[in-house]
Amino acid sequence: MPLNHPTAARRSRLSAALDALPDADRVDAILVSNLVNVRYLTGFTGSNGAVIVWASGGEPGDDTIATDGRYTSQVAEQTPDLPAVIERDVATALFRLADAARSSSGGGSLRLGVEAQAMTIAAFAGLRGLAAEHDVTLVPLSDTVERLREVKDAIEVESITSACAIGDAALSALIDRGGVAPGRTERQVARDLEWEMFARGADAIAFETIVATGANSAVPHHRPTDAVLQVGDLVKMDFGAVSGGYHSDMTRTFVLGEPAAWQREIYDIVEAAQRAGREALAVGADLAAVDAAARDVIVDAGYGEYYVHGLGHGVGLEIHERPGIGAAASGTLPDGATVTVEPGIYLPGRGGVRIEDTLVVTDAAPRLLTTTPKALRVL
Amino acid sequence: MPLNHPTAARRSRLSAALDALPDADRVDAILVSNLVNVRYLTGFTGSNGAVIVWASGGEPGDDTIATDGRYTSQVAEQTPDLPAVIERDVATALFRLADAARSSSGGGSLRLGVEAQAMTIAAFAGLRGLAAEHDVTLVPLSDTVERLREVKDAIEVESITSACAIGDAALSALIDRGGVAPGRTERQVARDLEWEMFARGADAIAFETIVATGANSAVPHHRPTDAVLQVGDLVKMDFGAVSGGYHSDMTRTFVLGEPAAWQREIYDIVEAAQRAGREALAVGADLAAVDAAARDVIVDAGYGEYYVHGLGHGVGLEIHERPGIGAAASGTLPDGATVTVEPGIYLPGRGGVRIEDTLVVTDAAPRLLTTTPKALRVL
Repeated sequence: MPLNHPTAARRSRLSAALDALPDADRVDAILVSNLVNVRYLTGFTGSNGAVIVWASGGEPGDDTIATDGRYTSQVAEQTPDLPAVIERDVATALFRLADAARSSSGGGSLRLGVEAQAMTIAAFAGLRGLAAEHDVTLVPLSDTVERLREVKDAIEVESITSACAIGDAALSALIDRGGVAPGRTERQVARDLEWEMFARGADAIAFETIVATGANSAVPHHRPTDAVLQVGDLVKMDFGAVSGGYHSDMTRTFVLGEPAAWQREIYDIVEAAQRAGREALAVGADLAAVDAAARDVIVDAGYGEYYVHGLGHGVGLEIHERPGIGAAASGTLPDGATVTVEPGIYLPGRGGVRIEDTLVVTDAAPRLLTTTPKALRVL
Repeated sequence: MPLNHPTAARRSRLSAALDALPDADRVDAILVSNLVNVRYLTGFTGSNGAVIVWASGGEPGDDTIATDGRYTSQVAEQTPDLPAVIERDVATALFRLADAARSSSGGGSLRLGVEAQAMTIAAFAGLRGLAAEHDVTLVPLSDTVERLREVKDAIEVESITSACAIGDAALSALIDRGGVAPGRTERQVARDLEWEMFARGADAIAFETIVATGANSAVPHHRPTDAVLQVGDLVKMDFGAVSGGYHSDMTRTFVLGEPAAWQREIYDIVEAAQRAGREALAVGADLAAVDAAARDVIVDAGYGEYYVHGLGHGVGLEIHERPGIGAAASGTLPDGATVTVEPGIYLPGRGGVRIEDTLVVTDAAPRLLTTTPKALRVL
């Protein structure tokens, strides 16, 4: 039942990725300590854990997870297919285990990968001390698991789809009951939107909900305040839910009362840019070219200087993950990536517009997971 | 108005702490990249930022914060007293700034501290490349800011007190309306408790709420499931709120219906152990001795093997911070530390009891911030 046990398949993909590393980075195994990656590879969700995954060539040891005594039963329940070591210092425990496995298999010196973007200087110094006592070379690796996570499997897409549906339904319910209206504060709107998400089964909110009204909407990452929504305001709402550990991410911008000409103008430009960005999402598309597809619309309209961030990012177990879609990005979009498309125009002191969807990249057209309409809506 | 601008006072304390480092660790400045520490030292709450703080001797540069373009207005609003550099790679930006400040002041080679427990191998490798091109030595430092954070200032204690009050009131409201009762599921109880905390002004929940009923209560860090609360169960609830960025942490264990003799027995032992632990909280007390004060009660009663974790931990901007209070802890309790006291007995397959408070260590008796009564309550 591969679909029900996706973590074994993920570890196999990692094993194959280790086999394919260039010679300088060749390792016998990788010690994965980034907790998000541990969850991805094993299903374990505790706050202390690491997993060792072996390259396939030689296979001197078994993949093993480590955690501490608080999680003895949890790890048994969440990762029944993996042997578990119970010890507080999980990295050291797995280091010792790998060293022992290599020795008893009669192998030569052990080359053990560690996650350069997750392991701290302090943890690395500790392991390096051990490595010096044994015949072990530590090899810092970057993005090894993160690259695998770019391509979502069916269970992941299902969770992200659920999270997006929760966000869509929550926003719709809030608007239908007049929850986004003049006289209310940014904080009230944000809190109510979060409650609507929880009421629809969100495990958590995906990030600090952004509700920004009037001039505040020109602040890309505004935190909700006691500012009161006023007739004539643009109201920007950027929010998401977590379902099964997976995030959704969506932004809509509304106008309270009839839009002024400048509001309509920047809204239309952002809407066109966002459409262009979505349409550029194709398997194999250059990431910088996807960014450019949307950015060109805004630049050509003369607002380039008011669009101060990248076009989008991967969404999954983390709200921001690979691939980043920006002007300086390198690489291409893989089949099965879930990404946001979120251009914006921010006029300081006046207001701003951002429109954002989460989509799955497919062989055919990208599949839209956030389905709230994007035509300018007057509330 | 020092009380209204505590971050300047915190940076002065850090500066003095840098002056007092042993010669091997002596630095001209520290590049603080742990976001919690950045918030502590500056008030900035964005998701990308770092701050450089100079030792007082010589003072070739000004303390400066760095963040990226998403946070231009937020950083101006939250840290009006600090110059800000806007650049995505905040560590490199501050490295360059420190190097330039040192050069223009005619100083010798620069020794720049970095946070060994926060900076990743990858970030360190990047800075080390730069350091090799300049006359700069990077000095990994541990716990430099974390040690300062052990002692809470008045504003911090106020926030933690508010967070604890939210938790107390939420639990009380939930129980009063029959929210913890046979027939309900762990998940329902957890969700309702979280809603009660939000309704009382919590910015967020402090950590994944634990509601564990029956045999699940023997799992120290149980995640709420669809398990139904039954008459005869122990129900353990461990939860907290966040207020102003600061956390609360409290555990209470209830019994549904008249307690069995074994439930009463372990409850009474844990209650006595928890009292002994609280009474051991004194300025200058040895951390391991505080742990022992509570642990001895449980060991003497014959349940030592069923108490599988430390006695407590600091609480503040993080739910777990210094000082750790455990059998292997070294160091002493400072005046103004906010800590938990949370012994437990966990009988696998049967049930468990934990009782936890958050308290402030003072010159007089420790001040209890979580005020929900601890006598065994039958629900």
